[in-house]
Amino acid sequence: MDQLKIFTPATIANVSCGFDVLGLALDTVGDEMTIKKVAKKGVTITKIIGQNLPLETHKNVAGVAALALLAEIDCEFGFEIEINKCIKPGSGIGSSAASSAGAVWAMNELLGKPFGVTDLVRFAMEGERLATGVAHADNVAPALFGGFTLVRSYEPLDVISINTPSELYASVIHPQIEVKTADAREILKTNVSLKDAIKQWGNVGGLISGLYTEDYDLIGRSLEDYIIEPIRSILIPAFDAVKQKSIAAGALGCGISGSGPSIFALSKGEATAVKVAEAMKKVYENVGIDYDIHVSKVNNQGIKILN
Amino acid sequence: MDQLKIFTPATIANVSCGFDVLGLALDTVGDEMTIKKVAKKGVTITKIIGQNLPLETHKNVAGVAALALLAEIDCEFGFEIEINKCIKPGSGIGSSAASSAGAVWAMNELLGKPFGVTDLVRFAMEGERLATGVAHADNVAPALFGGFTLVRSYEPLDVISINTPSELYASVIHPQIEVKTADAREILKTNVSLKDAIKQWGNVGGLISGLYTEDYDLIGRSLEDYIIEPIRSILIPAFDAVKQKSIAAGALGCGISGSGPSIFALSKGEATAVKVAEAMKKVYENVGIDYDIHVSKVNNQGIKILN
Repeated sequence: MDQLKIFTPATIANVSCGFDVLGLALDTVGDEMTIKKVAKKGVTITKIIGQNLPLETHKNVAGVAALALLAEIDCEFGFEIEINKCIKPGSGIGSSAASSAGAVWAMNELLGKPFGVTDLVRFAMEGERLATGVAHADNVAPALFGGFTLVRSYEPLDVISINTPSELYASVIHPQIEVKTADAREILKTNVSLKDAIKQWGNVGGLISGLYTEDYDLIGRSLEDYIIEPIRSILIPAFDAVKQKSIAAGALGCGISGSGPSIFALSKGEATAVKVAEAMKKVYENVGIDYDIHVSKVNNQGIKILN
Repeated sequence: MDQLKIFTPATIANVSCGFDVLGLALDTVGDEMTIKKVAKKGVTITKIIGQNLPLETHKNVAGVAALALLAEIDCEFGFEIEINKCIKPGSGIGSSAASSAGAVWAMNELLGKPFGVTDLVRFAMEGERLATGVAHADNVAPALFGGFTLVRSYEPLDVISINTPSELYASVIHPQIEVKTADAREILKTNVSLKDAIKQWGNVGGLISGLYTEDYDLIGRSLEDYIIEPIRSILIPAFDAVKQKSIAAGALGCGISGSGPSIFALSKGEATAVKVAEAMKKVYENVGIDYDIHVSKVNNQGIKILN
């Protein structure tokens, strides 16, 4: 096997109460990548379709992640990477993570799987460091593991794959405005009240429990964020209306995807997720903001081979 | 059935990362109570063996909890309660919660179970309000549900019963010093750093995941408290030594039970829990502080009928 064509998924990080620790993978939203073994050592980004992104290996998130992997193995050959970017950068659904994770996952396959998934997370995090200044794992982890993931700790890196109920669907709307991750981080407070923190970890516990017991009501009750959403939602026009309409249309819960501006809702079953997406669309149509909309099952598999 | 003799368990609240939300029930440490249906309406505390506690219904935690239950049902008869207190008040293993929970659980049985377990938690919380000034649920919930419980939310009250691995044992040492719950609360900070709060909810997520997947290593890795323990452990002599020796003896993790002064450790299997208890004992023997020591399976059943 000398080349692989893969689907690498968009991801929702934070997931309401799980700021900086939880993430989930989408099933029908993502990039396609082709990774080839070539005689020339090192990593070459040969082509990027769909977005104007740097081809220089050191300036490209997939390139940087790929180099992080190669730094830990003796490799007598090199890799060429072609990316068909369907996820818009800056949308808040893990565009950079999809590229970073996809590159290292495919390389690991082509190398005969010398690395475990947590190693791949570690390499892909270097792409995130280039993209956002912070080597966070909450998007690359679900892209690589599939389903829901928990980044329990960074030092040492400890990523846990969480059971994901089979009828869980996401509706995601991306209003065409720009929220930079760095800006979204800057407005956060350094300190939070212990009272709110307790409510938040109560909800993290409830959400994880609901995922294992496939208790959709409990998942819904737990999808509350007392700490980040009240601050960041100010950056997203009509956030409150989208949330309210989503819940009214049957969503279990609704929150900011990553650092925004995309908004996600989780629902039980595809039919409800489609209704929720319709309700979300109407809000932005009423206020006259363009949007992309996605409905997707939560992807239990992560990255998939296409050829 | 006109009377019930029950075992009502001691409990460990907080459980390291789960401050104010997590709790677990012990299996061989607890009180015995006898609850009788009698013609005279209301609640009478007839006898308390083992401790000098008030017999006046309104001043006794079991009495107050019992009255909270009776306030929600038309009852043509009354109840007499006798308590054989084996759990020392102020030890940090849910002494008041055992009495409150035991009273309402037995009354509900004698009444033909008109109330669900979450209702019983609500009534028993009134006993906690009398004991500590705060109607907390993190001890009464595990006493009533058994195993591990999560108090996800107070408004509305939402208590989740969490899967509890069968080989989980607790070693608990109670140094004979006094730490008042009110004092232990007062020294806590109102605000915490977002950074520490994120680590804490990562650990709550990891612990809940570990309990469902019966991954003892993950349970151990998650039993870290970045927020409360560094402050409260100052009130408990030789806490750091007890923790260090417990881990060295094979414990998965070790922390403050409730608001202390008891210290708990969790282990996989009884043999390790016994070794851990021996290591804990030695620390207090070396510093010359008297102690009580318990080794108990985590109790999956909660309150048990003895007659």
